[in-house]
Amino acid sequence: MSINEANKNCLQRIQESTALWSDIRPAKEVIPGMSERTVLHAGPPVAWENMCGPMRGSITGACIYEGWARTPEEVAELATSGELEFDSSHHRHAIGPMSGIITPSMEVNVVTNTVHGIETYSTLYMGIGKVLRHGAFDDEVLAKLRWMNDDLAPLLKASLLRAGGIDLKSLVAQAVQMGDELHNRNKASNALLLTSLVQHLIAVGDKAAVIEAIDFIDKAGHFILNAVMAGSKGMLDAGSNVKDSTIVTALARNGYETGIRVSGLGDTWFTAPAPMIEGVYFPGFGPEDANPDMGDSAITETVGLGSFAMAGAPAVVEYIGGTAQFAMETTLKMYEITAGEHETFKLPPVNFRGTPLGIDIRKVVETGITPVINTGIACKRPGVGQIGAGLTAAPIECFTQALDAFVNRNEP
Amino acid sequence: MSINEANKNCLQRIQESTALWSDIRPAKEVIPGMSERTVLHAGPPVAWENMCGPMRGSITGACIYEGWARTPEEVAELATSGELEFDSSHHRHAIGPMSGIITPSMEVNVVTNTVHGIETYSTLYMGIGKVLRHGAFDDEVLAKLRWMNDDLAPLLKASLLRAGGIDLKSLVAQAVQMGDELHNRNKASNALLLTSLVQHLIAVGDKAAVIEAIDFIDKAGHFILNAVMAGSKGMLDAGSNVKDSTIVTALARNGYETGIRVSGLGDTWFTAPAPMIEGVYFPGFGPEDANPDMGDSAITETVGLGSFAMAGAPAVVEYIGGTAQFAMETTLKMYEITAGEHETFKLPPVNFRGTPLGIDIRKVVETGITPVINTGIACKRPGVGQIGAGLTAAPIECFTQALDAFVNRNEP
Repeated sequence: MSINEANKNCLQRIQESTALWSDIRPAKEVIPGMSERTVLHAGPPVAWENMCGPMRGSITGACIYEGWARTPEEVAELATSGELEFDSSHHRHAIGPMSGIITPSMEVNVVTNTVHGIETYSTLYMGIGKVLRHGAFDDEVLAKLRWMNDDLAPLLKASLLRAGGIDLKSLVAQAVQMGDELHNRNKASNALLLTSLVQHLIAVGDKAAVIEAIDFIDKAGHFILNAVMAGSKGMLDAGSNVKDSTIVTALARNGYETGIRVSGLGDTWFTAPAPMIEGVYFPGFGPEDANPDMGDSAITETVGLGSFAMAGAPAVVEYIGGTAQFAMETTLKMYEITAGEHETFKLPPVNFRGTPLGIDIRKVVETGITPVINTGIACKRPGVGQIGAGLTAAPIECFTQALDAFVNRNEP
Repeated sequence: MSINEANKNCLQRIQESTALWSDIRPAKEVIPGMSERTVLHAGPPVAWENMCGPMRGSITGACIYEGWARTPEEVAELATSGELEFDSSHHRHAIGPMSGIITPSMEVNVVTNTVHGIETYSTLYMGIGKVLRHGAFDDEVLAKLRWMNDDLAPLLKASLLRAGGIDLKSLVAQAVQMGDELHNRNKASNALLLTSLVQHLIAVGDKAAVIEAIDFIDKAGHFILNAVMAGSKGMLDAGSNVKDSTIVTALARNGYETGIRVSGLGDTWFTAPAPMIEGVYFPGFGPEDANPDMGDSAITETVGLGSFAMAGAPAVVEYIGGTAQFAMETTLKMYEITAGEHETFKLPPVNFRGTPLGIDIRKVVETGITPVINTGIACKRPGVGQIGAGLTAAPIECFTQALDAFVNRNEP
């Protein structure tokens, strides 16, 4: 099969995919191969020695939360003892923003690609600022995590089951026409989610708990992001392992390295050092506090959302910096490195053209244009949390390596 | 004072205005001079003899609803008997979309401009299709009206009181950045409204009633429109009667005539025959079924929303026709006939420039560019309802007459 045909097949599998947010369950019950001491993280595989500050901070919080350790020192000891099984979430059908830490007792969103029978998982979104995924782990963070796991998750689960699931693909399609790009702007999608869920929340919960849950989801702002990320992964996994396809099916960062996977190249990661982020900082923080690019959330860009859909979400520049014109130009530029246009996610400002879909490693290398990612900025010191948001790009080295491997793929 | 200074004062009064949706009360208790048999309608004053089909249809429904008559024939008799006191809503601090009929027992939104101490009123939004404001009046319509008045209104009222009101100005500002123009696209604002109200609905209502109310508001799609119209009127009324100002403070249509009022010219209406609408029709209907332009909803355009804000709401063209480029061009053209830009309603696609605000009759006459209005289309036959949506413009004659009057305003 020709490469173009292979890419067409790959895109068709992605386009026809669905994303039904169907359930919430404990990680240990649903994520494959989740042992008693598994710690999943964002991005390509990375050893504790190379993990950045915020990822170590998140692991510290998770280990204390799980009752495996009581202090950062005990966690460091545990992490170097070999007792913890670290792995990339991507290897387990799971995904997470920023450090993306998932441990066995955490409740996770279950999202189903009903067309391809793929189930994917992500933790619940925690809000911005001092949160676990950005490396914060103090008592307040752990208490919030406990409330989310013990109170919010069962209520949401019951509501999702009563609703028969939430059709994330339809919701995203609507939100893209309402100024969201679904990575750093989720204002419309979060409101649409609440609108879809609220009747079920009321039906299954008691007044006080429902009001608390709605208030949390509303104020968290990006609550839907993690579910959309799991949905995006389910779509892209459907496009994986198409022989001879040069389409990127994963683009993820662990704060140490950025890595990509390519459909026709199986599970291999092509990595390069994670870049810094140009951004807008919360008061009291600046570039000197920033960690390099981190997190699986670039799955949104990979599926035609995030910065790829910024033409439809100019207001996101208030959060990440830049101008509305820049937002438009970014989307237009991304068409130059993608193999197709999304059939469901349509951008009104470019006359309802579909968002750029399917990063083609050949086009990236030919043009030198790398995928733009809009993202949160974590403090490089563990324990602090999110300090801003901004823009970066995937390193060109990931794509040149992948193209080399692709060219040589049939050699013995 | 110079005209430009007067216009600046007028705009400042509009800009500093607020719109707090504070209560829901029966029309007869709050609308000034509402007698036992008052029937308020949209647009400039119009006698029964000249009223169009859908306005007569709405009056038929309202009279039957009030128990004043049992059949369309009895209503026609009543209407010609002189027993009904017809008046323009604009004369009573009230406003309504399409026919805009308000009778004494109808529950109305109460919106307060807290800066200028102005209270304005509008009925509750009923949905699209076969609805009272478009001239439908069968049993189904009347039953829905009864449910809205007797069940929905008390629940909403209690929620609004518990919430301390809904800040419509802030909500509109957010929605303008989420693809709404607040006249024919209210998808974001409606979701934001639900998000703001839902905790209070849950707190004050019983489960079944709350679920029913949320479902209705969600499906109605434009539920917030009527409250926003009342809020817009409260803002523009604050800018009324500024000596020497050439700013339009009302632009309204009754399906027979379109009329404008100008700040420096007091309460005088300048009217011309209502134009037809270029639009998209619901299945089974076409231009031959259409009524001329009708309704007070052009108050949104007058306050810098509606078609004036279309650059930020390209998806509205799916409902009213046209292209995203046309939406952008319309907003840009409206800057040519307005005296300023809104300080709170900002459009991301034009780099957060404020929406065009303050139609200046001088600029309209000089350029020949008339205010574009996007609007619903009613069937010209009473009893049918809405049959489409589209675009029209206020007739130039309204502006030339007003300018003549303005030039001669100081003559005895």
